[in-house]
Amino acid sequence: MRYEFYYWAGIQGRGEFARLALEEAGAEYVDVARQAGGEAALMRLLDGAEAGHLPFAPPFLKAGELIIAQTANILLYLGAHHGLAPTDEADRLWAHQLQLTIADFVDEAHDTHHPIASSLYYEDQRSEARARTADFLKSRAPKYLGYFERVPERNPAGPAHLVGAELTYPDLSLFQMLAGLRYAFPRAMARLEPKHPRVVALHDRVAARPRIAAYLASDRRIPFNEHGIFRHYPELDTAA
Amino acid sequence: MRYEFYYWAGIQGRGEFARLALEEAGAEYVDVARQAGGEAALMRLLDGAEAGHLPFAPPFLKAGELIIAQTANILLYLGAHHGLAPTDEADRLWAHQLQLTIADFVDEAHDTHHPIASSLYYEDQRSEARARTADFLKSRAPKYLGYFERVPERNPAGPAHLVGAELTYPDLSLFQMLAGLRYAFPRAMARLEPKHPRVVALHDRVAARPRIAAYLASDRRIPFNEHGIFRHYPELDTAA
Repeated sequence: MRYEFYYWAGIQGRGEFARLALEEAGAEYVDVARQAGGEAALMRLLDGAEAGHLPFAPPFLKAGELIIAQTANILLYLGAHHGLAPTDEADRLWAHQLQLTIADFVDEAHDTHHPIASSLYYEDQRSEARARTADFLKSRAPKYLGYFERVPERNPAGPAHLVGAELTYPDLSLFQMLAGLRYAFPRAMARLEPKHPRVVALHDRVAARPRIAAYLASDRRIPFNEHGIFRHYPELDTAA
Repeated sequence: MRYEFYYWAGIQGRGEFARLALEEAGAEYVDVARQAGGEAALMRLLDGAEAGHLPFAPPFLKAGELIIAQTANILLYLGAHHGLAPTDEADRLWAHQLQLTIADFVDEAHDTHHPIASSLYYEDQRSEARARTADFLKSRAPKYLGYFERVPERNPAGPAHLVGAELTYPDLSLFQMLAGLRYAFPRAMARLEPKHPRVVALHDRVAARPRIAAYLASDRRIPFNEHGIFRHYPELDTAA
């Protein structure tokens, strides 16, 4: 099956977590909004102009007649259909739990630059962004990274992956999380990374996988920029 | 099986979405942290002092040896084991998608009173809370409520439920979402509710279910208060 993937054309954003799974799976897909006329097609589905399950927001994935939205839900589907999730229930739930925790971490990273309203410009909430980011870098990012350092440490199958002995979709998402944090907060991450060697090793292992490496080197990978979730505003990136 | 449910003892919070599913299922469960010594047991699991899958934060559910965290993940499990989720894949994903969208809505409701840092008091971020809440009531809550009004409207099985012809776990969660908004923002909701009759009807239908009605009347239901997600600060509740 050839999937249709829908997400904003100019950013990695939440869509990138699904793109990485599609790429690692070697799935056939069209990144619809990046084609001519694609944004209009995205808007039609979002407006409910077509039949089927209505998404609240991109990303969404069209798999035949099925429209699946919410990043973690797309990964639940792709994981099950492309060998990127455990097959037994306990580990399947565990992988999903980790994904949902990464989703929370992503939300908090987003709100560093938009603590008051997504509808306002960053420039209109700059001082609040400074306060929120200070707390994020001092408390929240270390708490999440410390958690994700312990997960491979406690994995009975060894620290190469988050769940079991094989790659699963939260590994891909943790790679993206670290890549985004490095882009947004290079100074803070230079301080935090040495304390989280297993997270860094996991990131590097994902980056080196042949399909992921090919994807990252291609123009299908949209560069990080100041429109997405992870934005580099030097004034927010304090080392403390 | 007798479940052990773990969540902070004094608040509804995110745990309430799981409590409602346990109650509607008629499941046997202990609300551990509300028992003597229970908070210490919760902290032991959270600190990783015991073997098994490490939660990042409460709520979590112990089902035999299995520890499941993340609210939507707990509902994925309970839904499948207690007839609170569709059995076919397309509708199962659809129900989960709706739950994840409610989770996003809940996060935004929380951040109205804590836009800068969860670690700070509300009183220390009051003016930022006012700005964030104004945007929430003007833009975000109407957008989410408008979406959830359309979902039953578009349900081929009729508007009595979000998914198909039977109650599923997102129905319970939408009930809780509306109950929380009413508590936190009575003035704003008095204005918003008449525009969303299907959401209100769905809330009322859930509240009238025998097991839910019995639960709501019992002391197992913790009253809303100013420590949870939905907090009533009159200065934030603008009608505009």
